[in-house]
Amino acid sequence: MKNSETLTLLDIFQEQPGQYLSGEEISKRLSISRTAVWKQINKLREAGYEFEAVSRLGYRLLEKPLPLDSAWISAHAEGRSFGKTIELLNTTTSTQEDARRLAEAGAPEGTVVLAEEQTGGRGRMGKKFFSPFGKGIWMSILLRPKQPLHLTQQLTLLTGVAVRRAILKTTGVEAGIKWPNDLLIDGKKICGILLESATEDDMVRYCIAGIGISVNLKEEDYPEELRSIATSLRIVNGQNVDRNELICSILNEMETLYELYNEQGFESIAALWESASVTMNREVSVHSPRGILTGTAAGLHSSGALLVRNADGELVPVFSGDIRIESANETR
Amino acid sequence: MKNSETLTLLDIFQEQPGQYLSGEEISKRLSISRTAVWKQINKLREAGYEFEAVSRLGYRLLEKPLPLDSAWISAHAEGRSFGKTIELLNTTTSTQEDARRLAEAGAPEGTVVLAEEQTGGRGRMGKKFFSPFGKGIWMSILLRPKQPLHLTQQLTLLTGVAVRRAILKTTGVEAGIKWPNDLLIDGKKICGILLESATEDDMVRYCIAGIGISVNLKEEDYPEELRSIATSLRIVNGQNVDRNELICSILNEMETLYELYNEQGFESIAALWESASVTMNREVSVHSPRGILTGTAAGLHSSGALLVRNADGELVPVFSGDIRIESANETR
Repeated sequence: MKNSETLTLLDIFQEQPGQYLSGEEISKRLSISRTAVWKQINKLREAGYEFEAVSRLGYRLLEKPLPLDSAWISAHAEGRSFGKTIELLNTTTSTQEDARRLAEAGAPEGTVVLAEEQTGGRGRMGKKFFSPFGKGIWMSILLRPKQPLHLTQQLTLLTGVAVRRAILKTTGVEAGIKWPNDLLIDGKKICGILLESATEDDMVRYCIAGIGISVNLKEEDYPEELRSIATSLRIVNGQNVDRNELICSILNEMETLYELYNEQGFESIAALWESASVTMNREVSVHSPRGILTGTAAGLHSSGALLVRNADGELVPVFSGDIRIESANETR
Repeated sequence: MKNSETLTLLDIFQEQPGQYLSGEEISKRLSISRTAVWKQINKLREAGYEFEAVSRLGYRLLEKPLPLDSAWISAHAEGRSFGKTIELLNTTTSTQEDARRLAEAGAPEGTVVLAEEQTGGRGRMGKKFFSPFGKGIWMSILLRPKQPLHLTQQLTLLTGVAVRRAILKTTGVEAGIKWPNDLLIDGKKICGILLESATEDDMVRYCIAGIGISVNLKEEDYPEELRSIATSLRIVNGQNVDRNELICSILNEMETLYELYNEQGFESIAALWESASVTMNREVSVHSPRGILTGTAAGLHSSGALLVRNADGELVPVFSGDIRIESANETR
C-alpha cells in the first residue's frame, strides 16, 4: 500500500526534477485530498526523502535516499563468507532477534541481517537503541567461533576495531573506542555494538555481533534527550555516506580481523584496540551491579577484560559494567 | 486419536485386573482386528505400560506408568520460585528449545519445562540424548543469574550437585559426579546435564539447566550401543521410582543451593562438588578441540574450571572438553 502510493507521488516529482509542485497540483494529479498529499510527503520524509516546502511555490524534492542493496553488498564483499548470505528487512523489531532465529536454524557463519528500521532496537543492558528508517546501519552478523565461553569478550573488542577501521577507510572520520565497544567522536556516541552469545556449558554455540551506526541522521532527527550524547557521520562530515559501501567495508574488516584472530589469537587484536581506545590511560569509574570502581585504565587482560589500576596500585580486571571517563574530553 | 484408542483398550484390562485377555476377545470387544489389538498393546508398552503375553492365555496388564503431574509438583515444590511455573509436554523435540522460547518471552526464574518424551534430546557437544517416553526425567529449568558470563560453569556444577543430592534423598542411590556434569553409578551414566546460556556482551541474560535422568528404563529399553555405558535408577535399585517425587526433590535442592550460591558465592558449592566427584585426585585425560591433556585432577578453579596438574607439576585450568578417567573404576 505505502509503496504504490509513494511511487506515484515520486513519479510526479521525478517528471520535473528540481521543480516546485504545489499541493493543489499534486492533489489534482493523484486525485487525492491536500491532506493526503501532505501525509504522503511526510511518509517519504520518514523514508529518507528530503523536501523543501515554500509557501505559494509548493514542494521541491531535494534528496532521495539510497536504499540498502543486499545484492550489491554480497557482490562487493571481498571475503569468503561474511555477507555472502544477507537477509534484508524493510522494518523489524531487532536484527539481533532475526539473526538468532537464523542461527538456531543453522545459518552459516558470516550470515548478515540488515534492516532499514528497527522498531525495538536494543543496546547494552536492555537500553533502547534509536534506529530510524533509512538513516543508519542496523546490522547483525552471525559468528560461530570455536572457542570457550570466557573468550567471547575478545570478539566484542574485535568488532569495535573492525567498525572503527571501516568508518575511517570509507569516510576519513576517526572514531575512538570506549571500553568495551562504543565508538565515539568528540565524546558523542556514533556507533553501539552488542555481542550476544548462545553457549552450551562453557562452549560457544554462536555469537551475534550487533552493530548500530548513526550514518545519515541530522541533528533534528534525534530525540531531544539524545542530541547531547549522540552524533552521526553526516553531522561530523557534513555529507551523506553510502551505507552500502560502509557495510561492505565493515564486513571486509570483520572477516580479515576474525581470520587473524582465529590464526594468531587475541594479541594483535588487543594491540589494535588499545591504539584506538579513548579509555586507555584515563581516569575511569566502572559502574556495575557490584558497585563502583575507580582507577586508571591500564590495558586489556588476555580475556578481553579491562585492567584498571586501583588506588592501591593493584590491577583489577573489569569484565562488565558501564565505564565513565572522568576527564572532560573523550576523543583521542 | 491415540488417547481414545488406548483408553478403551485399558478399560477392558481394568475391568478384570490381573486377568489374561486373549487377543481374540479384545478384538471382539473393541471390534477391531487382531493386528490392531497388537498395535495398541505396543503403543501402550511404548507409553510405559507393561503387559505379559502368554500363548493361549493372551495378555495381562502387569504395570501402569505413573505419568508426570505438573500440578502435584508445583504444589509440593517447597521453594519460592522453582517449579511454580511448569510447562508439561507429552512429547517435544527438546525441552531446552521450549525453555529458550519461554525465556525469550520473559518467563520468570525457576520456570520448568517437562516432557514425557524428547524426539531430539541433546547432550553436550551436539550428542544425541536418549529420552524415551514415560521412563525418565527430561527437564529444563530457567535461571536468570545476575553474574558475568565467565562464571556460568559454576552453575553447571551446582546443578550436578543438586541432582545428585535429590537422587540420594529420594532413592538412596549414591551417584558420583564426573567433571563437569555427568552423574555416574558403577561407571555408567545415569544423568546428563547441559547448561545453555544466552549472554549479552559478557553478562548473562539467562541460563537453561537441562537435566536428563534415566529413571525407570530397563536394560532392554536401551539401544545396544548404550547398554555398556548407561544405566538407570530402576536397573540399580530394582524398582520403579516416582518421577514426580524426584523432580520435586531436584527443584528443592536446586533452589536451596542456588540461593546459597547467590548469597555466599561458589565456595560452598565447590566443596560439595569436590566431595561428590569421581574425578578428583584421579589420573585423567582431557580431550578437546585444542588437543589432549593428561594429568591429575587436583580441584576446582574459582571459575568452576577443573584444575589438572600436568607432568611438569603445573596446575592447568580446564574450561571444557571430554574428561576420561584413566583408572578402571569410576565410582567413589
